[in-house]
Amino acid sequence: MTPISQVTIRRARRDDVGIIIKMLADDPLGGARERLEDPLPDCYFKAFETVDRDPNLQLMVAMDGEGAVVGCLQLCILPGLSSQGASRALIEDVRVASRCRSRGIGEARAKGCKLVELLTHHTRVDAQRFYERLGFGRSHVGMTLRF
Amino acid sequence: MTPISQVTIRRARRDDVGIIIKMLADDPLGGARERLEDPLPDCYFKAFETVDRDPNLQLMVAMDGEGAVVGCLQLCILPGLSSQGASRALIEDVRVASRCRSRGIGEARAKGCKLVELLTHHTRVDAQRFYERLGFGRSHVGMTLRF
Repeated sequence: MTPISQVTIRRARRDDVGIIIKMLADDPLGGARERLEDPLPDCYFKAFETVDRDPNLQLMVAMDGEGAVVGCLQLCILPGLSSQGASRALIEDVRVASRCRSRGIGEARAKGCKLVELLTHHTRVDAQRFYERLGFGRSHVGMTLRF
Repeated sequence: MTPISQVTIRRARRDDVGIIIKMLADDPLGGARERLEDPLPDCYFKAFETVDRDPNLQLMVAMDGEGAVVGCLQLCILPGLSSQGASRALIEDVRVASRCRSRGIGEARAKGCKLVELLTHHTRVDAQRFYERLGFGRSHVGMTLRF
């Protein structure tokens, strides 16, 4: 396992889209959802541009000491009225070595969020144990409707 | 119960903030989180302005036939790379009569979302039954970290 000092977190760039989609697809759930084709379908680049333009969204990648991308996550800042007008942070699409995941939380706290929420598929029990070790509580039932 | 034809859903306005906070606070969880003071603390109006400016956020209120606000919800559009670059919709802070809730989903579908996610506190079993009747599945564990 690479020591924490050798892992760098940075904003994802357009030329990371291929490796990010590879990570998103490298999973029993993601494998059925994504189109890992060569060349990569244009929908992924369009989505990257939309995310990249949005000041409330941060698509991040984690790099190891050799500069290889070893993980990704998307941090979403969600302003709202509840909890005395506190913004929330939502972390989506985490595919990242466990030693890197807590960086997203630090960023959320720095931006004034008082709460981090995340959803993990009910079958991902290892991920749930990992988040519990970081201090997350199993507070909610996440429900999904697909069209 | 007011018939569905008499309920109107519209964007929330600044002068709805008081009634929205009243609804957010009228709940065992919300009662401990909000500051229902007169005048209402400025943090709520600041949060309203941030939400109102954001094209990906829609704070909605439901009105009955007499024009009284009977519910609210916040729809968040979340662009992302996964699921072939599909946007997702997240519904937060739902305080709305059951006959109005499914309107947010229609709006999400119209904006090209392929998926609606929501979190409901694990103690809100009536809400979970309601969402299951709308077609939602209990797909995820929602985890929260408060600072």
